[in-house]
Amino acid sequence: MKPYTFDKSEALMERARKVVPGGIYGHQNPIVLTKGAFPSFFERGEGSHVWDVDGNEYIDYMCSYGPIVLGHRHPKVEEAVRRQSQLGNCFNAPTPLWVELAEYLVSITPCADWAVFAKNGSDVCTWATEVARHATGRKKIAMCAGAYHGAHAWCTPAPAGVMPEDRANIVYFRFNDLQSLRNLVDENHGEIAGVIVSPFRHDAGFDSELPVEGFLPGVRDLCDRNGIVLILDDVRAGFRLHMGGSGELFGVRPDLTTYCKAIANGYPLSACLGRDSLRKAAQEVFFTGSYFTSAVPMAAALACLKELQAGNGIERMRVIGEKLREGMLAQARAAGFEVTYSGPPSMPYMTFKDDHGRHDRIKVFAGECARNGVYLAPRHNWFISAAHSEEDIRRTLEVTEQAFAAVRKQFA
Amino acid sequence: MKPYTFDKSEALMERARKVVPGGIYGHQNPIVLTKGAFPSFFERGEGSHVWDVDGNEYIDYMCSYGPIVLGHRHPKVEEAVRRQSQLGNCFNAPTPLWVELAEYLVSITPCADWAVFAKNGSDVCTWATEVARHATGRKKIAMCAGAYHGAHAWCTPAPAGVMPEDRANIVYFRFNDLQSLRNLVDENHGEIAGVIVSPFRHDAGFDSELPVEGFLPGVRDLCDRNGIVLILDDVRAGFRLHMGGSGELFGVRPDLTTYCKAIANGYPLSACLGRDSLRKAAQEVFFTGSYFTSAVPMAAALACLKELQAGNGIERMRVIGEKLREGMLAQARAAGFEVTYSGPPSMPYMTFKDDHGRHDRIKVFAGECARNGVYLAPRHNWFISAAHSEEDIRRTLEVTEQAFAAVRKQFA
Repeated sequence: MKPYTFDKSEALMERARKVVPGGIYGHQNPIVLTKGAFPSFFERGEGSHVWDVDGNEYIDYMCSYGPIVLGHRHPKVEEAVRRQSQLGNCFNAPTPLWVELAEYLVSITPCADWAVFAKNGSDVCTWATEVARHATGRKKIAMCAGAYHGAHAWCTPAPAGVMPEDRANIVYFRFNDLQSLRNLVDENHGEIAGVIVSPFRHDAGFDSELPVEGFLPGVRDLCDRNGIVLILDDVRAGFRLHMGGSGELFGVRPDLTTYCKAIANGYPLSACLGRDSLRKAAQEVFFTGSYFTSAVPMAAALACLKELQAGNGIERMRVIGEKLREGMLAQARAAGFEVTYSGPPSMPYMTFKDDHGRHDRIKVFAGECARNGVYLAPRHNWFISAAHSEEDIRRTLEVTEQAFAAVRKQFA
Repeated sequence: MKPYTFDKSEALMERARKVVPGGIYGHQNPIVLTKGAFPSFFERGEGSHVWDVDGNEYIDYMCSYGPIVLGHRHPKVEEAVRRQSQLGNCFNAPTPLWVELAEYLVSITPCADWAVFAKNGSDVCTWATEVARHATGRKKIAMCAGAYHGAHAWCTPAPAGVMPEDRANIVYFRFNDLQSLRNLVDENHGEIAGVIVSPFRHDAGFDSELPVEGFLPGVRDLCDRNGIVLILDDVRAGFRLHMGGSGELFGVRPDLTTYCKAIANGYPLSACLGRDSLRKAAQEVFFTGSYFTSAVPMAAALACLKELQAGNGIERMRVIGEKLREGMLAQARAAGFEVTYSGPPSMPYMTFKDDHGRHDRIKVFAGECARNGVYLAPRHNWFISAAHSEEDIRRTLEVTEQAFAAVRKQFA
């Protein structure tokens, strides 16, 4: 195979740096990737494969950092988009899809009586905290230290531009440490409006942690006994673990659930689902945006979720994800590495024990993979889609075997 | 003509109320419209016309509250969208359109050296205030009391869910009152990071005000002399008044300019453009979202803005807007009404003097228009698009003449 080169990506990046601060910002900032091994610009995608601007082809294990759950350009989603586009997208009021999608989401979600729609995960996570505050008349929001709930000032991982006032009402506990939340509730007696928590711990750069037995039900119980609104941030995991919300997998039913990412296979949509008890508060907290009622992403969402359901997509991602895990763990053992392969099979994250919390080996590993046609980021969980095939896994394991060897060689 | 009925809209609204708090929320909430005269759901659009779910046709003077600047489903925009959709939309990194669009925006904007992209107007307005804070090391943001800069807690028009801390660093001045800003700068000496202001006053429910001679240049001068970042919120007016930013029309060049609405003819995109002096701060304030780098809205934006430029769209909107204004003012005079017809011709707003700040007559007027095929909201500025034709204006003026008569009759 021809070695991958990135001349066009690099030329575009040079142009980008002149007209965009840093060239590319946010979670796709190439600074977190392996230097010289990853493309910075993409050309096209099809199913589980993507092509960069230099024509290099990759099996895509980032799925656009989550949104692509059925594979790129899934025919049923594209057909729904094409059909709606012929009518129009953005009007003075919603289209019937607004109602159909809300009804559908409520029908598949045991703990939801209503839905609202927006554009970003940040939109719905922030709004959910406001609904909790308005409903309870309390100020404070409890979140896990280090968790990602969006790029807004109250929770952004970067301090620049954040004022102390933005976080004056945020208090912190630890994931999988129910006692730390109990203490928080005691210390802030009657002041906590909401607890926001993801279904499993997936902080970038750290091993993922599934919730330990009893943790999420314990959070639910603490919330119930203290009149606290429980918000499940399912932006990243939603529709990859369970069609009814990831809480269903872990025995917890939140009061508010936030979705984005996989909801519409890459079309711009986020949602918050909630219980009747919060309907009045939800109606009163102003929430809007120029494109919140747009129809095309809603057509995409209905097609995407129905296809996930009909095609048993979640189970397929789990099975394929298990194969990848088994294969890679066997290779790691054979190559003499201790690795931690954490998170659910469809959203895995791998670290080398010898990296001791740094990312030296995983960066070499991910770079070697990328240069050989397997795209996975070195310090963020990966994403399986329902389009990943046995053949993809077979080819991927050829590449990862070489990648383990490359790490072995470099860190001999 | 068959009288308009809204049976399907009403049936959908009944379903919507069960699964969405309030049925429809935000700026498209039908509660602000004339009861019984407006549809709540749309089916399709083409050029300057839209059709609701009951098959009623309207000449559309809201343009989806701004985004539709070339008319619904403009062939050049749709073709660009179709072409990009065949490659894909949402990837692990941007496509070349990211660079092309940033370069294009910088090339047409005299005061901009760089651009960033997001999804909502709120995204970019809030981020701009954070960049101003980070760049200056100061806390406070000055805005005009009553202005709309988005739905985030620091500026939302509704108090529900807003904490005092959200506004602890917001101070207020009055549009067109330079002295009120001077006082603010004196009272908060060395503490104001940024001033955010729209190019003209367009607060919903109030007569619009163009900036008086010297106001915006005066704001610019005050900012310069006090090291304050000037943010022009061009979300609503952007690309309807001037291709280089609405400040060009009023003699002011901001440090940061925010765009949304008309930038991509209804496809979900917002942008913030800025000067070199703020590039470093912009690079450091974290900004991201699942769909920020998506390609389809960028293809739409390039096609939309180039067509606006090539087709002299802004001048066409001005000329058509003038005709509407002249026609309606003549009708108002003939019917014996004193009306205020404010704002630029392409974004007009009308009030009846006898409404004394309430909206009784304008609600009857707008309702009569809607029931006869002319869609304009009673307490929000209207939007002309480049697709509005002389024939649209002729037909519109037939309807508005009847509408003035209906107001006359009802308030006799």
